[in-house]
Amino acid sequence: MVDLKYKATESRANCVEVTAMGLKSFEKHQEGIRDGREVYFEGERVTDVTTHPVLGAGMAFAAIDYRLAEEKEHRELAVCTDPKTGELYSRFYRIPETADDLLKRRELIAAGSRVNGGPPLIKEIGTDALFALHIVSDHMDKRLGTSVLPKVRNYFGTCRSLDLSFAVAQTDVKGDRGKRPSEQHNPDVYLRVVERRKDGIVVRGAKAHTTASPFADELIVLPTRAMAEADADYAVAFAVPVATPGIKLIAGISSHPGGNRFDYPVTTDLKMVDTVTVFDDVFVPWERVFLCGEWQYAGALANAFVEFHRFTAASYKLPMCELFIGSAQLIAEYNGVANVTHVRDKIMELIAWTETTRGLLVAAAMEHRIVSPGIAVPSVTLTNIAKHHFARNYHAMVQNLQDIAGGLLVTAPFRKDWENEATRGYLDHYLGGVEGVSGVQRVRAMKLIRDIAASAFGGYQEILSIHAEGSLAAQRITILRDYDVKRCVGIVKSYLKD
Amino acid sequence: MVDLKYKATESRANCVEVTAMGLKSFEKHQEGIRDGREVYFEGERVTDVTTHPVLGAGMAFAAIDYRLAEEKEHRELAVCTDPKTGELYSRFYRIPETADDLLKRRELIAAGSRVNGGPPLIKEIGTDALFALHIVSDHMDKRLGTSVLPKVRNYFGTCRSLDLSFAVAQTDVKGDRGKRPSEQHNPDVYLRVVERRKDGIVVRGAKAHTTASPFADELIVLPTRAMAEADADYAVAFAVPVATPGIKLIAGISSHPGGNRFDYPVTTDLKMVDTVTVFDDVFVPWERVFLCGEWQYAGALANAFVEFHRFTAASYKLPMCELFIGSAQLIAEYNGVANVTHVRDKIMELIAWTETTRGLLVAAAMEHRIVSPGIAVPSVTLTNIAKHHFARNYHAMVQNLQDIAGGLLVTAPFRKDWENEATRGYLDHYLGGVEGVSGVQRVRAMKLIRDIAASAFGGYQEILSIHAEGSLAAQRITILRDYDVKRCVGIVKSYLKD
Amino acid sequence: MVDLKYKATESRANCVEVTAMGLKSFEKHQEGIRDGREVYFEGERVTDVTTHPVLGAGMAFAAIDYRLAEEKEHRELAVCTDPKTGELYSRFYRIPETADDLLKRRELIAAGSRVNGGPPLIKEIGTDALFALHIVSDHMDKRLGTSVLPKVRNYFGTCRSLDLSFAVAQTDVKGDRGKRPSEQHNPDVYLRVVERRKDGIVVRGAKAHTTASPFADELIVLPTRAMAEADADYAVAFAVPVATPGIKLIAGISSHPGGNRFDYPVTTDLKMVDTVTVFDDVFVPWERVFLCGEWQYAGALANAFVEFHRFTAASYKLPMCELFIGSAQLIAEYNGVANVTHVRDKIMELIAWTETTRGLLVAAAMEHRIVSPGIAVPSVTLTNIAKHHFARNYHAMVQNLQDIAGGLLVTAPFRKDWENEATRGYLDHYLGGVEGVSGVQRVRAMKLIRDIAASAFGGYQEILSIHAEGSLAAQRITILRDYDVKRCVGIVKSYLKD
Amino acid sequence: MVDLKYKATESRANCVEVTAMGLKSFEKHQEGIRDGREVYFEGERVTDVTTHPVLGAGMAFAAIDYRLAEEKEHRELAVCTDPKTGELYSRFYRIPETADDLLKRRELIAAGSRVNGGPPLIKEIGTDALFALHIVSDHMDKRLGTSVLPKVRNYFGTCRSLDLSFAVAQTDVKGDRGKRPSEQHNPDVYLRVVERRKDGIVVRGAKAHTTASPFADELIVLPTRAMAEADADYAVAFAVPVATPGIKLIAGISSHPGGNRFDYPVTTDLKMVDTVTVFDDVFVPWERVFLCGEWQYAGALANAFVEFHRFTAASYKLPMCELFIGSAQLIAEYNGVANVTHVRDKIMELIAWTETTRGLLVAAAMEHRIVSPGIAVPSVTLTNIAKHHFARNYHAMVQNLQDIAGGLLVTAPFRKDWENEATRGYLDHYLGGVEGVSGVQRVRAMKLIRDIAASAFGGYQEILSIHAEGSLAAQRITILRDYDVKRCVGIVKSYLKD
Repeated sequence: MVDLKYKATESRANCVEVTAMGLKSFEKHQEGIRDGREVYFEGERVTDVTTHPVLGAGMAFAAIDYRLAEEKEHRELAVCTDPKTGELYSRFYRIPETADDLLKRRELIAAGSRVNGGPPLIKEIGTDALFALHIVSDHMDKRLGTSVLPKVRNYFGTCRSLDLSFAVAQTDVKGDRGKRPSEQHNPDVYLRVVERRKDGIVVRGAKAHTTASPFADELIVLPTRAMAEADADYAVAFAVPVATPGIKLIAGISSHPGGNRFDYPVTTDLKMVDTVTVFDDVFVPWERVFLCGEWQYAGALANAFVEFHRFTAASYKLPMCELFIGSAQLIAEYNGVANVTHVRDKIMELIAWTETTRGLLVAAAMEHRIVSPGIAVPSVTLTNIAKHHFARNYHAMVQNLQDIAGGLLVTAPFRKDWENEATRGYLDHYLGGVEGVSGVQRVRAMKLIRDIAASAFGGYQEILSIHAEGSLAAQRITILRDYDVKRCVGIVKSYLKD
Repeated sequence: MVDLKYKATESRANCVEVTAMGLKSFEKHQEGIRDGREVYFEGERVTDVTTHPVLGAGMAFAAIDYRLAEEKEHRELAVCTDPKTGELYSRFYRIPETADDLLKRRELIAAGSRVNGGPPLIKEIGTDALFALHIVSDHMDKRLGTSVLPKVRNYFGTCRSLDLSFAVAQTDVKGDRGKRPSEQHNPDVYLRVVERRKDGIVVRGAKAHTTASPFADELIVLPTRAMAEADADYAVAFAVPVATPGIKLIAGISSHPGGNRFDYPVTTDLKMVDTVTVFDDVFVPWERVFLCGEWQYAGALANAFVEFHRFTAASYKLPMCELFIGSAQLIAEYNGVANVTHVRDKIMELIAWTETTRGLLVAAAMEHRIVSPGIAVPSVTLTNIAKHHFARNYHAMVQNLQDIAGGLLVTAPFRKDWENEATRGYLDHYLGGVEGVSGVQRVRAMKLIRDIAASAFGGYQEILSIHAEGSLAAQRITILRDYDVKRCVGIVKSYLKD
Repeated sequence: MVDLKYKATESRANCVEVTAMGLKSFEKHQEGIRDGREVYFEGERVTDVTTHPVLGAGMAFAAIDYRLAEEKEHRELAVCTDPKTGELYSRFYRIPETADDLLKRRELIAAGSRVNGGPPLIKEIGTDALFALHIVSDHMDKRLGTSVLPKVRNYFGTCRSLDLSFAVAQTDVKGDRGKRPSEQHNPDVYLRVVERRKDGIVVRGAKAHTTASPFADELIVLPTRAMAEADADYAVAFAVPVATPGIKLIAGISSHPGGNRFDYPVTTDLKMVDTVTVFDDVFVPWERVFLCGEWQYAGALANAFVEFHRFTAASYKLPMCELFIGSAQLIAEYNGVANVTHVRDKIMELIAWTETTRGLLVAAAMEHRIVSPGIAVPSVTLTNIAKHHFARNYHAMVQNLQDIAGGLLVTAPFRKDWENEATRGYLDHYLGGVEGVSGVQRVRAMKLIRDIAASAFGGYQEILSIHAEGSLAAQRITILRDYDVKRCVGIVKSYLKD
Repeated sequence: MVDLKYKATESRANCVEVTAMGLKSFEKHQEGIRDGREVYFEGERVTDVTTHPVLGAGMAFAAIDYRLAEEKEHRELAVCTDPKTGELYSRFYRIPETADDLLKRRELIAAGSRVNGGPPLIKEIGTDALFALHIVSDHMDKRLGTSVLPKVRNYFGTCRSLDLSFAVAQTDVKGDRGKRPSEQHNPDVYLRVVERRKDGIVVRGAKAHTTASPFADELIVLPTRAMAEADADYAVAFAVPVATPGIKLIAGISSHPGGNRFDYPVTTDLKMVDTVTVFDDVFVPWERVFLCGEWQYAGALANAFVEFHRFTAASYKLPMCELFIGSAQLIAEYNGVANVTHVRDKIMELIAWTETTRGLLVAAAMEHRIVSPGIAVPSVTLTNIAKHHFARNYHAMVQNLQDIAGGLLVTAPFRKDWENEATRGYLDHYLGGVEGVSGVQRVRAMKLIRDIAASAFGGYQEILSIHAEGSLAAQRITILRDYDVKRCVGIVKSYLKD
């Protein structure tokens, strides 16, 4: 079990008091999620996720967003002041209106990811979804005469005041991916409305890979794709507390559940948890329903969310890229090959990959669009290119890193071998690197690289790179849709007129 | 021969009067370069480059920078006002101090390139060199006690007042590339000082591929690489008028010298001219000598120049990328394959390539460094990644474009076949595309693509992509040198300490 | 004009007498094609292709197949003896029955291409088509009760006896590529039967890029794609003499029409000629008609042809690959960079590319399938992978070669500059490479690389790589269709059954 | 613990009696390795590897070579008859003299790998080493007058008669990779002779990643690189029984040590074990010493071994490639996306990758060289290109497979979740694929893909692909060294002579 007390103590020293209105402390958050939510892990019901030996670490990891606001170093970045009320609130809740808002949000996400060793999770995804809900409901209200934007604003305001956290459940389990929701032989493989009541709706279905849901306050549910009129029952979006009756979270973990810091220097603390999220006829009151039958807006909402979320995602991936660069350089030095041409070339490629992703996000923020009701949306073309560049090249970068490290990456002895007196001396004697680098030093650097790039977690990261926040194919289509190809055709035609 | 009169007339309508101090008209520039310069082309001495049937077009192409300042549409971008004197001057002479200066410079270069169908040439490269000379001479003066910065400022001021244009001669012919200048069996393969006199120096050598030199006022000469003490005679930089005695320009052209707009819709006007530039014991007065023996600064100067110049270069290449996108889309529509998955995928890749290059330049401008004596240098890492991304993928993009177009690209009949009554009817009847697209329309689109991407000019562009402004290898080394890898190693080490 | 007399004389010395039955001499072939065929080039009707200044060189190039049979060095490879009659005949006519037959055919094609500097053309493509006609007509006769195989055998026998040569006209001009033949708004964009007469059929249409047709005896016409019943009129295959009334050849050339061996060391002789081939209501007698309305076999015939032809094509491309390797190495040595890591790496990639293509063809021959009526078909999967590997990487290999050579590739002076006394001395002095390599030597090597990989011909080769013998997409589909994926699924399932 | 009894029973049914001279049974082999060898695993000394819960499975996996000879289906391939003595012996011991010998060896290796789900190990690597020892000792005896070949022959004969198995310890732990053995600050990081006695030598050092050593009879030790005279003590090769005093095997495993067939359908049985192999002053009698001080032959021996071994390695990797193809197709069908263009394209790439590797090996066997003393060596160029092609593209193929499968690959529930009644019903209901594919069926296919390509074992395989049998860089250098570049330069020069 991860030593939460130690971590808490350590962090205290660098913390300010969090007593301000609108900011919730890490401890308070922990208390809040001990609410009877129905979570399963490794075949058993978990009664308290905060004290569970594995999920407890997952909670500590996911909740970094609360800790950032408490740390002196990050407080200025993490906390905003409402100019009217003087109220403090988490920056994640700041609706972006300028390039600077977007860049600061990007930096905050990157900071959380850097402190944490992996993506912070429980405010960024949810606020991405809420920004999208503002935009789409505004548009829908104007076209269809609905009145959803006020509900969204109201919900957003409450969450901001209480400093709540979120998981977003979007990806349906889908069944036959070649068919629309209403064409499936099992009608439940896309989440849908099974009953409309005076006071609200009842929904049924299941969403795959919902990240961090056992540790969030609220669950925001969005449709996963564009729909046709026949799919109207599947065009549904809403928000509910995680502990709502009927919601079942079947959780899995990305990395070795146990782990020790020798063999798993990064993932002993970095515990990403996803759930298959089942909605077994869950009731949602109308004031929390944001889409219900307006099938024309299902695709728009799905897209508006991922467009924000790809900006977020490419941001939180960058600290992992920096681990790639740093560990490649470190092991190259330990191995005595830091000046070999092909090694330098591979490190150069790691840098170019990282900085291309980061640079394109900066440009995307600079070239944002203001969309009604007044939200700055980062350039869709540039954001998607950034995300696609990151994802398309992820495996090649894993190969570069592994190539530099060498075969010991997977054949080096583990902690138990170092603890055994019969073998430890040999390992110390034989596994050192260049002069001054001991066996244990070099092997620990190897283990770190294995942990992030040649392990179950490494595999999880590979999948994440190409499937989280939409597939490569989805990004390619978005780029084509957003870019103004006609302008280029016009230039060409100007050469062809007589 | 290209119809310059027509072009001049046409452009007149959209022009403002250029009478202001500090701005030179296109015509005035033309007059100025009829100065007896020693130019050879296709084996013959050219007496007047402005009226030569081929080089005249090259001059019109190279001098777009002057025309831009005359056109209403671009005047605001192309012309600046000195806040102290109120004097107007070409924006190319604006020493960048902010992100906005860099972004405007980038836009101006792109505008010239877009209007022209290819890179504008005679102010941007020279001012890149002059910015570098400011930085390096300032540094050198402080360290070595020389007094070069005042000479640079003085030269720069004069050029700005007279609105002069430049070619930059940097790449030595090099001989054995595995040896330093002083180790060569032929001592002349790097340009060097052969005599130091009271009033100046005498230089000997030859520079390869000097772009647009027959059409520029001044020739700026820079060293091409870092040097050791033994190479001191080769550490030389200066500026001279092109018509200086002893300078011989042996010119070549990038595209079909003749050409007609049917077969060569782009390169009939786009005539890039490079010279082997011979310095047959050329005298340079001291006030025009900026480096002479200070071998420690040869590499710094070479680098400072290309760091600006790669920002310039990646900027002027973008309009060509847009031609790739536009012509790929157009021919796909003509062929009836615009909705085929692999075609869309290839167009997506053209877009991602273009926008990655452009986006990284925007980010490079945003993240500039201010370098003494107060010049904003775009982020070296991001600029080099932008240029490298463009160059590394150029051939793959050519392949994408050619793949979409189809084999008719090279087997389609030429203008003469369309002019022959015996065959024209068949060509009209058979070579059309989707309904509404005639044979001649489709073939002209094919010829445009052939012209830019499957011709002698196409080959020239391929070479340019990977050799102009330094090789791929040079960019890779620069990225490694500029990026802060140690910061990343530090993060990794934080995981490995107990 | 190319000096054919010189070439003829030169080759005489190494020749045997060609008087044997079944073998036609080069001169005889030349005479034979002076038959009034209707050829247009650069807007004019050509009365005799053998004496035309440009096309004459094309003829000499295309007819290498005849010269090979006359040369002592290649005679054994190029000529076979009929075991029954003792008659000699060209190996191209040997119907492959064993791996050895396929490997010898591959070697003969490679030999022709190596001697010629480019693909030999006028027997290999045609015999590929004839092998396919044997297979498909046999199958069709058995299923549909037609009687086409005897006609094919008869035609094949006659051609073999007379040692005739062929062009194959397959690719229709296609119009809207998104539509089938019978759906086009212009019904003529696929070749079709417009009249069925007692003695034969009348066809109308046009075929694009028919290679070497002005220099062949016979024109074999094949359908270009699979067809539906509505397309029956378009399902037509036949053979006619090139000089048949109504056939019009509108010719174009791949390289600089003129050229001199200094500036164009390879393509001065390597003149590939393609035509748009118009069929203006051409009559074909029944004994020469091999498909007429059997729409079910149009796709099979198109495929059977390209499956042989891709084996041929990948074979004749290899000598060009060897020029890439050799010239990369040579220029690296001249430049003094042969030991630089990235240069060596790029040469390694050129080798791997070449040998992968070649090795896969060897394996394809080894793993042939015997198809009724007894013809050895090289492994379709391996042949297509070989061709696809060659094509997919062609542009990357061009980039490697250009990268090693350097910018002088396109800016080096041309022959006229070397002939001018005013500049020659400078060029000699300055453009040399490592000690012992003169300026003219190094520039000539540069010109060779430019000629094959950075010129109009270079562009033509790029297009050829990805469009000739079917697009990359066509090869990918063929691989998927031919490979036994089910076997692999079966292995996977064996792990999942319990 | 793996159920060996079950497996043994199952296989009995398909077995012939193995009583022949020269063939050892699986059971006999098992007995033989219960010899007191010093093995450590997870920090503890293992007294009997054959009954250890984890290593026992590793033994069953490694010893497939013995089982193959017992199975009717493979016996003909696996067993040879000595033409002189009539004695039966394992085909692995057949010294290749023809293409057919090489192709059969390739097929046998592939068969073992296919039956086993992974590379067979304990005869192929060792015989590769023995073939190399024949060649190099023959050459050395002739040049240096040593008499090693007879010792090699003698050792080989004995091993063949007793049907022994091997591990090969080659890769030294290396310390500072930028330094030669004799330059290291720790003199033991390359294995070396520390004492020369009348009856033999004493060696000290450690070898990294020795595959399957706990399960083999003999340990063959080879040098890992070329050496200089100063390194003479490090130029040492020999063979010893694994249980020789002083040899310590510190073992690690490639996959989840436990595992169950639901979550780990492949690696529950596929247990690859590598050791850090320590030589703590081990005595070797002279008749088992094959190299001792002849530093000139250290590099040749290292190379000769890997040249055989890369042929072996590329052979045994192919069945894993087939699992990639089959599982990609299966999951695509389950997901309902088998006809989507980009999915088909990725499956095509998996096929092309697999068949390119395989086809090049076939060609390498065809184009073997006979090397004294009469051994057929597969084409070094083609073998290395095959191996390099496999390895260079491995990660890209992992990406293809993961892309097709989708995110459930890592977020799908595990066996325990299916065993829990509270959640099983939901999983069944929601996780199915196309009609007819149940949740458990689809998730098991996902788990198989995760097991081979997104797990600790997946990471191990990635490392193996680029580090086992030499790095990518080593293969690139070998290709350059073996290929006849000069021939290509000669062709180019023939165009440049006047």
